[in-house]
Amino acid sequence: MASVLQLFRAAKKLKIADAAAAEKPLSSGDKTQDKLQIDELAAWIAESQDILYAQHKHKILIVLQGMDTSGKDGTVRGVFGKIDPLGVHSVAFKAPTPAEKDRDFLWRVHQQVPGKGELTIFNRSHYEDVLITRVHDWIDDKECARRYEHIRGFEKMLAETGTVVLKFFLHISSDEQKKRLEQRIADPDKHWKFDPNDLEERKYWSDYQRLYAKAIDETDADHAPWYVIPADSKTQRNLAIATIVVETLQNLKLAYPPANPDYSKLKVV
Amino acid sequence: MASVLQLFRAAKKLKIADAAAAEKPLSSGDKTQDKLQIDELAAWIAESQDILYAQHKHKILIVLQGMDTSGKDGTVRGVFGKIDPLGVHSVAFKAPTPAEKDRDFLWRVHQQVPGKGELTIFNRSHYEDVLITRVHDWIDDKECARRYEHIRGFEKMLAETGTVVLKFFLHISSDEQKKRLEQRIADPDKHWKFDPNDLEERKYWSDYQRLYAKAIDETDADHAPWYVIPADSKTQRNLAIATIVVETLQNLKLAYPPANPDYSKLKVV
Repeated sequence: MASVLQLFRAAKKLKIADAAAAEKPLSSGDKTQDKLQIDELAAWIAESQDILYAQHKHKILIVLQGMDTSGKDGTVRGVFGKIDPLGVHSVAFKAPTPAEKDRDFLWRVHQQVPGKGELTIFNRSHYEDVLITRVHDWIDDKECARRYEHIRGFEKMLAETGTVVLKFFLHISSDEQKKRLEQRIADPDKHWKFDPNDLEERKYWSDYQRLYAKAIDETDADHAPWYVIPADSKTQRNLAIATIVVETLQNLKLAYPPANPDYSKLKVV
Repeated sequence: MASVLQLFRAAKKLKIADAAAAEKPLSSGDKTQDKLQIDELAAWIAESQDILYAQHKHKILIVLQGMDTSGKDGTVRGVFGKIDPLGVHSVAFKAPTPAEKDRDFLWRVHQQVPGKGELTIFNRSHYEDVLITRVHDWIDDKECARRYEHIRGFEKMLAETGTVVLKFFLHISSDEQKKRLEQRIADPDKHWKFDPNDLEERKYWSDYQRLYAKAIDETDADHAPWYVIPADSKTQRNLAIATIVVETLQNLKLAYPPANPDYSKLKVV
């Protein structure tokens, strides 16, 4: 299994190519089989969260990044959806509020980091502050470089204070995004997810791909690794992410705390 | 005036000596005169805060550290007491809550940093996490070194995102602390401030002095300077801190935003 973490780990000097979005390295070739496998992995993750909470030692932070329609919400449902809602905290970072704009870009993010025994999912994150902001020239290269440095320091601090940080780039192709946006426009059940602004952002596709590659390259670290997940197939995406999460949790050797031997003598009257 | 910032700036490889706590480099020699001077400086700081708020650009973070009875509360009153209560935010960091203990030591601190146009005073701070924790061996040297690094990264990030960070070590002598603790025990109006635990902490006086010197040395930076303030005299302490704050604010060249010329044509009916 150890190879899975290597398989998806961002390459040095990463280049993001449309073609790679369709790869299915973990697929059994049978979609039904793959989905059963995802269900099993998701159930295992849910059980592990219970131990994580009981052990009250590790903190797990999952960062999901990707272009519009890349499947961030679907990943939360598909991979983490079996966890007791009490045990998982999902945070969607939208455009910053006035109070957030008045402070450093890590302020709102730091507030939401997991405590001991907690698993938190960031649906978008502080990486937006080196992506959309740079694409639209709200910040220049110099400020962007400073922010990479701030992110590196912040994530290193989180890791050194006991947080397991996993970062996933959900990689879809331009064609796949086109298809998904068209569905959002056509399907009444998906209308609510459509934002005309997504069409504007799509015009900057190549800028985003370039800046994603740069941000990933600047902030990938063994204590806060980036995984590049082919995400044109939703099944493949969930299979890959679930497998990586399972392997990471297995490496932590989670265990319920030992029972207090004195308790076995207690009588409940 | 420029010399005042230099005069109190922590020396490299700082050694903290009891004798220095009684120095009065800014005193006129006349206590009444010195107090009038403090009042003028405090009034100037209060006026500047109004401009700071209106300009909505700079963020000011004042960190007050010192042994028990060193005068942190008195500094807040004496130097910042003339500011409109709407315009100043004073945060006293006590023993961490369970939620705070479950996260990195900078978590609760980062939440309280000033936004644009705000002035925030930390009465104790993240420095406790390399002082009391190290004195009592709750953390070892290795963890302490990691925390210095985390603090350096955090404060650099704050500075680079527009925060003016000023750190004051209120330096009292062991004899002066003895006197003040005795007053707290004897004076009915000060009983409430006395904590028997302060006598326990006093036993570690030399450890604290050594670790303060080390922490200051490790985290002093031009973007987050440490000032060592002789604080056996309360008047001298306030005079020094007020002067440093005034000079720092003067360097920012605060100014009200320009009036909108169109507004002068408006009629209020």
